[in-house]
Amino acid sequence: MITSPHNEKLKLVRRLRSRQTRTREGLFVAEGEDLVAAAAAARAEPVALLRAGEDVAPELLAAVSALGSGTRVLGIYRQRWSEPHGSLSVYLHGVGDPGNVGAAIRSAHALADGPVVLGPGCADPYAPKAVRASMGSIFARPPARGELTKLPGRKVALDPRAKRTLAEVEVDDSVVVLAGAEREGLPGEVLEAADERARIPIRPDGPESLNVAMAVTVALYEVARRMARHV
Amino acid sequence: MITSPHNEKLKLVRRLRSRQTRTREGLFVAEGEDLVAAAAAARAEPVALLRAGEDVAPELLAAVSALGSGTRVLGIYRQRWSEPHGSLSVYLHGVGDPGNVGAAIRSAHALADGPVVLGPGCADPYAPKAVRASMGSIFARPPARGELTKLPGRKVALDPRAKRTLAEVEVDDSVVVLAGAEREGLPGEVLEAADERARIPIRPDGPESLNVAMAVTVALYEVARRMARHV
Repeated sequence: MITSPHNEKLKLVRRLRSRQTRTREGLFVAEGEDLVAAAAAARAEPVALLRAGEDVAPELLAAVSALGSGTRVLGIYRQRWSEPHGSLSVYLHGVGDPGNVGAAIRSAHALADGPVVLGPGCADPYAPKAVRASMGSIFARPPARGELTKLPGRKVALDPRAKRTLAEVEVDDSVVVLAGAEREGLPGEVLEAADERARIPIRPDGPESLNVAMAVTVALYEVARRMARHV
Repeated sequence: MITSPHNEKLKLVRRLRSRQTRTREGLFVAEGEDLVAAAAAARAEPVALLRAGEDVAPELLAAVSALGSGTRVLGIYRQRWSEPHGSLSVYLHGVGDPGNVGAAIRSAHALADGPVVLGPGCADPYAPKAVRASMGSIFARPPARGELTKLPGRKVALDPRAKRTLAEVEVDDSVVVLAGAEREGLPGEVLEAADERARIPIRPDGPESLNVAMAVTVALYEVARRMARHV
């Protein structure tokens, strides 16, 4: 059992708080029994598994944990990345909040057959907050990186200023939903590269926009529903 | 300018971290320029407004802030509660995470004309995390408290084990979407009080469920879409 804070595994957990280190090492940390179970279900082998009171002294685990005291298990895993694929997938541009990136990964896992493809300016999907928000879907449906122009399928950009609603756009055999940051939205060059723009109808007395993860979820639901019906 | 940490307003901000105090005083705290602007837009007058360097020394504001240093403004507001109403609204049972309660309030503001009605076991919608997740919609669309049996409209319970999907349920002139905690779902007595149960179609290789705020958002989108079409 690890009883020294200078242990190499504990040092690695601490260093993996930095995105740079995560990217360089190709590793990340998943905390908690649910995430570790999700990893096992997706056959992701931990590089190291640290169980409180079993592999490591509980207070040392708590000290390196992002969740703090009470953490019972923490695993170090290899990052997995997929290629853009599937008949329905998501492309995010400039989504800097890791919670939103993780939530989109979970929704894609629930409603689509393709991954979340991360474009420029997105948060690291392997950041602790993103991994937690994915609720384990990061293991089952690894994210992708890819060029916008090379994505498979009809590109439908979510744009609150679009004339047509999501229910009115043409749905092809294969669709990629493009979504941008909450305030800025998608930049001009992404909107121009899209085959179509669509908005989610928001009440006139409502807020300016939906949260980006909410918007992605609604869009995936709507497109999947219409694809299933061959509309 | 307030320069003492013993100032009564600062003490009140600290005490309002407790749900009990918030409920007893009927007050809550909103932090940040966006929330304070959302309050003004909804004509919610602050009981007190604390601007860093103007009304209060910045370090004292940072010390009482839930967001920490860098907070520029913080307002104390009166809680507002509405009665259940509208042709489309939400009833939450046992949703203990304030982030989910706040996100549902935002989605209801965007997609429905009625409020989020809080049943037993829900987080305080006036908790800091809920207020933040509502992105100001808590001011524009105050939550309600109410008995399940007295809600206006057809009660559609979200239930992953339901036979019918959301797109298949009957949509009336008036609908209340019922949603429960993420794992437990809705308890038997709530399911029995519902007029209908419906599920959101999740891929067989997907996660067990959607996040509850996501599920509520998709349900509001689907029901609002079909109501608009008079399907």
